Amino acid sequence: MANWSANRPSRRSLRFLPERHCVEIIDQTRLPHDLVLVELRQLDDYCRAIDTMQVRGAPLIGITAAHALASCLRADPSPESEQKARQKLLATRPTAINLRWALERVQAAIAEAPLEMRAAVALREARALEAEDVATCEAIGAHGLPLLQQLAETRKGATLQVLTHCNAGWLAALQWGTALAPIYQASAAGLEIHVWVSETRPRNQGLSLTCWELADAGIAHTVITDSAAGHLLQAGRVDCCLVGSDRTVANGDVCNKVGTYLKALAAQDNQVPFYVALPTSTIDWECADGAGIPIEERAESEVLHMPGRDQEGREASVRLGAEATRAFNPAFDVTPARLVTALITEFGVVAPGSLQQLRDIARSKRC
Amino acid sequence: MANWSANRPSRRSLRFLPERHCVEIIDQTRLPHDLVLVELRQLDDYCRAIDTMQVRGAPLIGITAAHALASCLRADPSPESEQKARQKLLATRPTAINLRWALERVQAAIAEAPLEMRAAVALREARALEAEDVATCEAIGAHGLPLLQQLAETRKGATLQVLTHCNAGWLAALQWGTALAPIYQASAAGLEIHVWVSETRPRNQGLSLTCWELADAGIAHTVITDSAAGHLLQAGRVDCCLVGSDRTVANGDVCNKVGTYLKALAAQDNQVPFYVALPTSTIDWECADGAGIPIEERAESEVLHMPGRDQEGREASVRLGAEATRAFNPAFDVTPARLVTALITEFGVVAPGSLQQLRDIARSKRC
Repeated sequence: MANWSANRPSRRSLRFLPERHCVEIIDQTRLPHDLVLVELRQLDDYCRAIDTMQVRGAPLIGITAAHALASCLRADPSPESEQKARQKLLATRPTAINLRWALERVQAAIAEAPLEMRAAVALREARALEAEDVATCEAIGAHGLPLLQQLAETRKGATLQVLTHCNAGWLAALQWGTALAPIYQASAAGLEIHVWVSETRPRNQGLSLTCWELADAGIAHTVITDSAAGHLLQAGRVDCCLVGSDRTVANGDVCNKVGTYLKALAAQDNQVPFYVALPTSTIDWECADGAGIPIEERAESEVLHMPGRDQEGREASVRLGAEATRAFNPAFDVTPARLVTALITEFGVVAPGSLQQLRDIARSKRC
Repeated sequence: MANWSANRPSRRSLRFLPERHCVEIIDQTRLPHDLVLVELRQLDDYCRAIDTMQVRGAPLIGITAAHALASCLRADPSPESEQKARQKLLATRPTAINLRWALERVQAAIAEAPLEMRAAVALREARALEAEDVATCEAIGAHGLPLLQQLAETRKGATLQVLTHCNAGWLAALQWGTALAPIYQASAAGLEIHVWVSETRPRNQGLSLTCWELADAGIAHTVITDSAAGHLLQAGRVDCCLVGSDRTVANGDVCNKVGTYLKALAAQDNQVPFYVALPTSTIDWECADGAGIPIEERAESEVLHMPGRDQEGREASVRLGAEATRAFNPAFDVTPARLVTALITEFGVVAPGSLQQLRDIARSKRC
């Protein structure tokens, strides 16, 4: 798949700066208005970045956590330091499984290492996770591309209409993204493509992040409210849905940004394919079905306050609703496997009911 | 049903002021922050009020339009004046059928009247529409109440959990509302009830209007993002959905605020009843199914800008997304009859497939 690399987005959501012993991220809470780079050095920096969603997206959370652990071990390579860091990192976000997975990868790597080498081994593993993520997402893009090409053929020259939710682009991974990887590759392959981006309340990652990514890549797109997806699907204006996943479980149920389930229902009701793109690192093999996934509940202020820009282009925030109004804010929902047409992984496209066939491959092999 | 009248909300969304020859409305674009009354005198005032959604909701739009026509005839009772007013009013909002229905009611009333009496007859008809709306919504509440009581019995003392979308309360009608009428009556009847209010992007009528109404009435409620409804339904935290309708058609398909369809899909997927409350005046008997309903597309600025309050409590608005981002903003969607458990009308509760049985009743009788 080396031929795809030329189409790789030039930006990265995270960079390790060896000479500064730190990690540089894009502060995603400032997009699309400002492209602000932030250096993470201390454990607190990393935890805050994950917790406040300066970095978000299952793959990127995992890589960030791996670097956080490596950074802690550089300051103090003791098992106590390691355990403290692990616990603090695990507490930041409960739903995305990659955080745990990436920490386990680092732990396994350093298990046999002498104390004085633990930091170096951990850092090497974090860097390996970076490289793997790029290769994995590139492969997801390559496996997803034929699905989009086949749909485009049925459209007989009309622009292919893809609906996505939240952000599963390179901002959520490292350099390609998951759901956006096939779209980037389709665009590079000359396919006429237009992306409907649902805004993704309450934090508007669709409007703020996906639109910014697509504009940066010169891919046509239009934002809609989350509710408008149903009307578009009914009206025949969507050829397929393509989203990411924060955690996929053994039976093929998919946990992703809240609102994904409603889109999957509407896609099925209108016979439109619903694809989920995911690295196999986001699969929780120990969890039998979606009912076992903890759904993160975030602060009500995310619903009741809206940041943006005022008329002069300055940062501003408004309160919506009356002061006494209370909100409930679950961040994810579960899309049952029966609503998913196919899972696009780095190893190929599988039906959600056949996910188990990837289990051994995912264990034995890295892309 | 006179016994229900005592529970009628004390406020009204519109008042005719005879001594001032005008209509006084609540400017709904200022809620929940300010309760501002506005007087409508000229045709332009009325059209602007409907177009900018100072008044909204199918029943209230109809009553406002009837008063607008009466007001025009008072200034100039000629057929030319009448036609000009009709055309201008009809152009304001295409989806809600009540606008056309109310104008036809006024037209029919004045058809035989001598020129010098046309204004008085039109005004009398507008006032009759007001009185009818109050009685109609009161009856909708009375017919819906047993449905909520039956559900409450199955809950064995636990609080009844109702999910609504947008605003179908007295702000959308005159004094009771449609979907909120059974809720007001259930609360007055001593039922423990809690309402999940979906915020209803892009204009947030759920967060701004329904929460304000429910708080005013002392009814427990919590706002959620539109996307969160699916998770709540999956989690068994909703006993029924109850929404209004802007236009219901002959086969029972329901056109309502965009996002209603997605909630109906999720309700069905989780075996939760989905009720639609509507006055029969919102039924378009000439339209065979939902595909024939024009879906209003509103300005993209509704999606891309968010009004609210700044930290000092002053009116403010923020731009969301990048300046180059474009939005598509359909205001309604169609919920197929197969997803609707029952329609709650002023004449009783009917299955959507049996709507035709109301046709003759609705023609011959007024509640």
